[in-house]
Amino acid sequence: MEQLASVSETTRRVLTGALSSDDVSARDAVSEAFTQIRDITERLAEPLEPEDQVIQSMPDVSPTRWHRAHTTWFFETFLLSDERFWAAGASPPQPIDPTYDYLFNSYYQQVGPQFPRNKRGLLSRPTCSEVARYRQLVDRRIIDLVQTCPRDTLADLLSTVTLGLHHEQQHQELLLMDIKHVFFENPLMPAYGDPADDAIAVERPVGQRWSSFEGGEVPIGTDVGFHFDNEGPAHNALLIDFELCDRPVTAGDWQEFIEDGGYERPELWLSDGWATRTQQGWGHPLYWFRRDEHWYEFTLYGPRPLDLAAPVVHISGFEADAYARWSSARLPTEFEWEHACRTSGSADDASANLGLTHLRPRPLPRIRSRPERDSDTESAWARRPGLEQMLGDVWEWTASPYVGYPRYRPAAGAIGEYNGKFMSGQMVLRGGAAITPPGHIRATYRNFFPPHSRWQFGGLRLARDAAS
Amino acid sequence: MEQLASVSETTRRVLTGALSSDDVSARDAVSEAFTQIRDITERLAEPLEPEDQVIQSMPDVSPTRWHRAHTTWFFETFLLSDERFWAAGASPPQPIDPTYDYLFNSYYQQVGPQFPRNKRGLLSRPTCSEVARYRQLVDRRIIDLVQTCPRDTLADLLSTVTLGLHHEQQHQELLLMDIKHVFFENPLMPAYGDPADDAIAVERPVGQRWSSFEGGEVPIGTDVGFHFDNEGPAHNALLIDFELCDRPVTAGDWQEFIEDGGYERPELWLSDGWATRTQQGWGHPLYWFRRDEHWYEFTLYGPRPLDLAAPVVHISGFEADAYARWSSARLPTEFEWEHACRTSGSADDASANLGLTHLRPRPLPRIRSRPERDSDTESAWARRPGLEQMLGDVWEWTASPYVGYPRYRPAAGAIGEYNGKFMSGQMVLRGGAAITPPGHIRATYRNFFPPHSRWQFGGLRLARDAAS
Amino acid sequence: MEQLASVSETTRRVLTGALSSDDVSARDAVSEAFTQIRDITERLAEPLEPEDQVIQSMPDVSPTRWHRAHTTWFFETFLLSDERFWAAGASPPQPIDPTYDYLFNSYYQQVGPQFPRNKRGLLSRPTCSEVARYRQLVDRRIIDLVQTCPRDTLADLLSTVTLGLHHEQQHQELLLMDIKHVFFENPLMPAYGDPADDAIAVERPVGQRWSSFEGGEVPIGTDVGFHFDNEGPAHNALLIDFELCDRPVTAGDWQEFIEDGGYERPELWLSDGWATRTQQGWGHPLYWFRRDEHWYEFTLYGPRPLDLAAPVVHISGFEADAYARWSSARLPTEFEWEHACRTSGSADDASANLGLTHLRPRPLPRIRSRPERDSDTESAWARRPGLEQMLGDVWEWTASPYVGYPRYRPAAGAIGEYNGKFMSGQMVLRGGAAITPPGHIRATYRNFFPPHSRWQFGGLRLARDAAS
Amino acid sequence: MEQLASVSETTRRVLTGALSSDDVSARDAVSEAFTQIRDITERLAEPLEPEDQVIQSMPDVSPTRWHRAHTTWFFETFLLSDERFWAAGASPPQPIDPTYDYLFNSYYQQVGPQFPRNKRGLLSRPTCSEVARYRQLVDRRIIDLVQTCPRDTLADLLSTVTLGLHHEQQHQELLLMDIKHVFFENPLMPAYGDPADDAIAVERPVGQRWSSFEGGEVPIGTDVGFHFDNEGPAHNALLIDFELCDRPVTAGDWQEFIEDGGYERPELWLSDGWATRTQQGWGHPLYWFRRDEHWYEFTLYGPRPLDLAAPVVHISGFEADAYARWSSARLPTEFEWEHACRTSGSADDASANLGLTHLRPRPLPRIRSRPERDSDTESAWARRPGLEQMLGDVWEWTASPYVGYPRYRPAAGAIGEYNGKFMSGQMVLRGGAAITPPGHIRATYRNFFPPHSRWQFGGLRLARDAAS
Repeated sequence: MEQLASVSETTRRVLTGALSSDDVSARDAVSEAFTQIRDITERLAEPLEPEDQVIQSMPDVSPTRWHRAHTTWFFETFLLSDERFWAAGASPPQPIDPTYDYLFNSYYQQVGPQFPRNKRGLLSRPTCSEVARYRQLVDRRIIDLVQTCPRDTLADLLSTVTLGLHHEQQHQELLLMDIKHVFFENPLMPAYGDPADDAIAVERPVGQRWSSFEGGEVPIGTDVGFHFDNEGPAHNALLIDFELCDRPVTAGDWQEFIEDGGYERPELWLSDGWATRTQQGWGHPLYWFRRDEHWYEFTLYGPRPLDLAAPVVHISGFEADAYARWSSARLPTEFEWEHACRTSGSADDASANLGLTHLRPRPLPRIRSRPERDSDTESAWARRPGLEQMLGDVWEWTASPYVGYPRYRPAAGAIGEYNGKFMSGQMVLRGGAAITPPGHIRATYRNFFPPHSRWQFGGLRLARDAAS
Repeated sequence: MEQLASVSETTRRVLTGALSSDDVSARDAVSEAFTQIRDITERLAEPLEPEDQVIQSMPDVSPTRWHRAHTTWFFETFLLSDERFWAAGASPPQPIDPTYDYLFNSYYQQVGPQFPRNKRGLLSRPTCSEVARYRQLVDRRIIDLVQTCPRDTLADLLSTVTLGLHHEQQHQELLLMDIKHVFFENPLMPAYGDPADDAIAVERPVGQRWSSFEGGEVPIGTDVGFHFDNEGPAHNALLIDFELCDRPVTAGDWQEFIEDGGYERPELWLSDGWATRTQQGWGHPLYWFRRDEHWYEFTLYGPRPLDLAAPVVHISGFEADAYARWSSARLPTEFEWEHACRTSGSADDASANLGLTHLRPRPLPRIRSRPERDSDTESAWARRPGLEQMLGDVWEWTASPYVGYPRYRPAAGAIGEYNGKFMSGQMVLRGGAAITPPGHIRATYRNFFPPHSRWQFGGLRLARDAAS
Repeated sequence: MEQLASVSETTRRVLTGALSSDDVSARDAVSEAFTQIRDITERLAEPLEPEDQVIQSMPDVSPTRWHRAHTTWFFETFLLSDERFWAAGASPPQPIDPTYDYLFNSYYQQVGPQFPRNKRGLLSRPTCSEVARYRQLVDRRIIDLVQTCPRDTLADLLSTVTLGLHHEQQHQELLLMDIKHVFFENPLMPAYGDPADDAIAVERPVGQRWSSFEGGEVPIGTDVGFHFDNEGPAHNALLIDFELCDRPVTAGDWQEFIEDGGYERPELWLSDGWATRTQQGWGHPLYWFRRDEHWYEFTLYGPRPLDLAAPVVHISGFEADAYARWSSARLPTEFEWEHACRTSGSADDASANLGLTHLRPRPLPRIRSRPERDSDTESAWARRPGLEQMLGDVWEWTASPYVGYPRYRPAAGAIGEYNGKFMSGQMVLRGGAAITPPGHIRATYRNFFPPHSRWQFGGLRLARDAAS
Repeated sequence: MEQLASVSETTRRVLTGALSSDDVSARDAVSEAFTQIRDITERLAEPLEPEDQVIQSMPDVSPTRWHRAHTTWFFETFLLSDERFWAAGASPPQPIDPTYDYLFNSYYQQVGPQFPRNKRGLLSRPTCSEVARYRQLVDRRIIDLVQTCPRDTLADLLSTVTLGLHHEQQHQELLLMDIKHVFFENPLMPAYGDPADDAIAVERPVGQRWSSFEGGEVPIGTDVGFHFDNEGPAHNALLIDFELCDRPVTAGDWQEFIEDGGYERPELWLSDGWATRTQQGWGHPLYWFRRDEHWYEFTLYGPRPLDLAAPVVHISGFEADAYARWSSARLPTEFEWEHACRTSGSADDASANLGLTHLRPRPLPRIRSRPERDSDTESAWARRPGLEQMLGDVWEWTASPYVGYPRYRPAAGAIGEYNGKFMSGQMVLRGGAAITPPGHIRATYRNFFPPHSRWQFGGLRLARDAAS
């Protein structure tokens, strides 16, 4: 998998918005980035059979083939069909297939009607090969367009291509989340990735430490470089003094929660959480199962013994909240999380920001909880000070409902539907997961899911009020 | 398609039960039949892409791949696993894959638990290729077993293989019914068969005649030759004097029913029928649609202008019943139908019993309704006397709920679950459809579906009481 | 309760259709019958509080108040509004409340739209007092109309009133079925009737005998006296030789079925039955419950220890069928039942036809199964020869789907919706229950319910094929 | 209705927490408040028939009788059963009915299991009279307990009684909300209150003004006097500069929104809002209906012509949000609302804080939009400066999800389930409605409902960012 993560320095500059349309080589750079990112999608689909790429195992999941086609439709719709990007005399080409506008529009109401989301698994056509051809055709046209686009709209073109690439990367993560769910529904439990790539440490790390942060007005969000509209405007938030745990909650911790009746005690749960748990029959994280009195976990490498040292993953926001209450702690707000990430050095930690080189969260390093002798101390606390695995292992549920920042305004037109209209009924997650493409891991990034949702790679980290 | 229907004379003898296990060539004959019938299934799947073979478009539908695997599982379970059929010293082989027993058992409770029926579309594995290998492996073993089975259980073996082949043929029809539904859910409306095979006569046949039948005790059902258990015991039924229409109701007739408000007048409908129509929003047969003020019909050849001269198809029993009431007529009972079929020469009509050479009902020959001059008569009534298209175009809904005949008893063991346990809430259909394999078209054959069901090839023929 | 059953000899003659409109006293007789039957409804509602009369505990159930209003609406709609019954110069009165036509029409599509059936429990108005006033007003007008109706339409009027009274009686049974269900949903389990009226014999009757009946053509149904349209036309049915058990299956028998795993063995069940049992979690008849390791039963007298000697009641048709299979027997067809009832003397058994004097099935008399000495025989077999409790204890499920008899035709107009349109998806029950009004207990009476339905007083009696 | 609002000065002091348990007359004061508030509930139920008090028209609604019993259960459970409040030697009485603990517990998991919320409408017993007796019995015991409670737990007792009274008042509002929904489901559309109490101004007020507020850190919430736990801890929030509209949006404004296609334009809606609108078929506020081309509104006075000058009411949060977007404005955050209320003088406005004297929002005073002459100005802008109807007409939807304030902690034990566990998936509403008891109208009060909820008296007021 490792190669999937590696994009060229040029591509990295395009994705971070470091490139100006005035650069003489801007057109070439964007073409390079476009080619690389689009190619990663196809490589992610490569291990899958045509049959695998058809299945929608629940309404939230989309078939692989649909992701491949939808991301292509995005470029066709927001670039190829836009007259502004065509030189005088030229005009946008005919749609490659007029039906695709209906089949592959996800939720852009202003573009037109959409094939019902929960029926994506009823479509066998276009086939995988036909989708591959669709991708090739659009790719070729986009690369031409990047070269021929008039100067005066070039900046717009490049930023829309860049947005499209970030969109593509989001679907790369979705593709992996979704195929994991698809495979889990099958009693044969197929593996997506090569199990040889995966090692398991089943020893549980003990101990946890708390880092203290002072409250007050702190800067939140960003207005510079590439960022989604929901990451801005930059503004100040007012925090109380708080503490954040130095590591995510692990599968081993979670086992204790289960054994202590965590799923059976309503007083630990939000009312909606308890109702959901009861209706769904939750008694453990999604993908866990027991066999012969041992816990196992279904991963993208297939079924594996539970890794007690790895961050727990595939829990809902309701479960995260109940766990925190059981721990006499709470979830951090998204502002506490962002402030801690920015000020603790985590955001600059190059090793953290890996992405896509492993298909599940990495185990935590061991620490010894109680140094037995003085001389032990150094090794016992050998972990670097600060916060472990803030970025790139699991999305961490926060206590913050997903709403717009002060003075937030979505973009005009259909593309404004990208983020704003989902600001209802969802919670913010921060940090990025093992399967998150690197360009989507940063201190200001806001992921969001409804609190009952479990198929994304969601975990948690505890926080608490500082003693007042 | 024509070649699909043609099976060898030997195969035909096996299927009709004309073969005795004492025949020296019985083993060879059964092997030949087995090979031919199993091969037809694979040929039916040939036009389909792997992606097509995964979809379950509604709970009643099964993916193509599932049909191919399930029919194979039937042979593995009821033959390969049965110790009686193995020579002394030999023993049944290990299951080819232990999971398949769970995945591909349809409804045999006595065999074991079943993967939920409505989730068959969630499985991408085993893939089409793996299913093909599964079929080959089982086929080879069955053919070996037929040769090596001890003499004293040979008769049982051969009759179970024969049952398995009839079972396979039922799934051949289901495969076609199901893929038609799958393709219709897709806005691209793909064609299964080559449209060039299909000609359309859009002129509507006029007129209909009634054949009279005398009542009394008449023989029903059969105990000889191959037949499903629900076709026996042979017994007498008591009929009143009745009349049967010489032809099925056509699409043209149905258009009149629609135009006369047939779908809007509750007094024409059974109470459950009206509720279903309202809930489902029925206003025309399944697969009809309007475009530019014309009616079209989705067929296995793709979308086609409505053929007014062809029997209406894909109506529910509720719609059939409402149509009959609208016509001041009624549906025949299954006994009336069978008696008429047997005594009118229809059953012996070789041309009727075609099966699988066309993928939709054939248009009816034209007749003139009112001979205008004496000299017209001959040509106007040129159709042969008797009943048109009793067999091999559409399954005809009857007025008879599906129950066991007097003294009916299902077979012992799991195989007894084949028919008997479905004798509740279903109606009998008679006659056989265009896509029905020839061996399943005969006067005593009882097909059955719930009255709301529309995806099978169901049509109707009117009956009425004789004036008393 | 006893007095509820006693209607005058005049009323009895009206209800059985023994009265001719030519009788000089016909008008008075019908008025008397009308007054008596209408009064019984109000007396059945008397033990109920206003709050009780509002509840709809499931879609099949109607609130008491609704039954009282709907039966009144029936007379208002089919008599008061019919111009034919008003003398020259007079004309039908204005509707008492125009909204009632919408609120209290049950299912007569030809009369007009209906307030949704499953929302009847959302109506608090009209209140009980308002409904009582509505009844009084309509009653007074009907009695006037009976006296003033012109001679030439008098026969029609009287037969419609008679039909209305039978309709009223059906709702008297429904009222009791429904309030039983309502009270059972309440953890307080209130009693409808005075528990002092009820004695329990908890000793189980042993033994059962089979009566033999010869097959052949036998007369079925009736065309004379008052009868519902679905009881005719009289015609012949063809029976095989069969045997019928001399008594219904008891609660004690049913306990054995439970203990033998009857609810856990899919091979005993119809496929739809097993699915229903699984979905509904059935493990015993409706209204049974366990407390301190004993079985209890909720009755109209409140919760009571299970009476092992009484016919089992509140089972579905699916359960009846599974029990019969478990007993190596089967359910009788409705024709076998009717033939046995007519020829065994049961139909003439005056004591059987009680109705409404007890609110649950009477226990069966004891018999000894195996006479130990010759001298025992007489007492042991002291029960009268023939069939016990064919009439007036439990409705007995038959094996017959509910369809029209040969040449059946519903009446014209809205009143024709009474029976015919329900001939789909239901099974026939015969015999009449403890709470059935006497006029509804006769050999030809056809009750019908879907096979999953349990809130009516349904039980069963075993049948089997005669050895051939 | 007016008398319902008037409580004595003593009661007012009890409810606002102005009373100390050290006051010599504290016991008497609490008894007086208890008697008055409990009595108001019974007076609110007085216009209702027993039949009305049984109905549950949707899962959110509870029958009137249930409210009356549940509030009583609250006192029985949290006071009578608490040993701490009984003098030495005395002990808590037996429960009045052991079943009531199950029937009338709403959602306190730590107390015990609850009768399913969505089945409250299935209970006819205890009847209205039995509930009245239950209330009397508990009331008498509480009043005794208040007098006899040991000194050392008296403060606890009094504060729990006070909480119970506030709880009772919340159910008074629910009772009215719920019966309105119940009556609306009935085609007879009964009136709860006397229509003579209600006058309608159908002229639409024109114009609106914006009040400006400066941002910065502002105090939010309270720790003093009686308040629910969710109103504290008092803390600072950071606001941007903003403007608030001087009046709520009116029914007349809303009509314009409808006419401009507000319900048909997806770009105005949140994604979940659009889905809800589509699924529910929303095209106008709940309780609006059209007749003869005019808009009407169902009110607690029965159906009435739409009052264009009154605040729109019974809209969901989704509709409020869409309206704001259509107006190029937004909803205020709850902090903006509270800050504006506190600093604009609205909170001190005695006339605003009426409550319960009218059963629907009062019409707004007229203003002229454009003063035509200088001399007009004075009268045109005669409305007092500041914000109209912030308190006591409609609950105003805010943009704030309902979460705990910094350092919020629920109380220990079952009573801690009062507020905290609902902090998920709900939005905050501020201000109080016409039917809100006066003690529940204050600047810091936080009401909350899911954004799809419409049966509470919810309206809106626009806000916008100050130009930056």
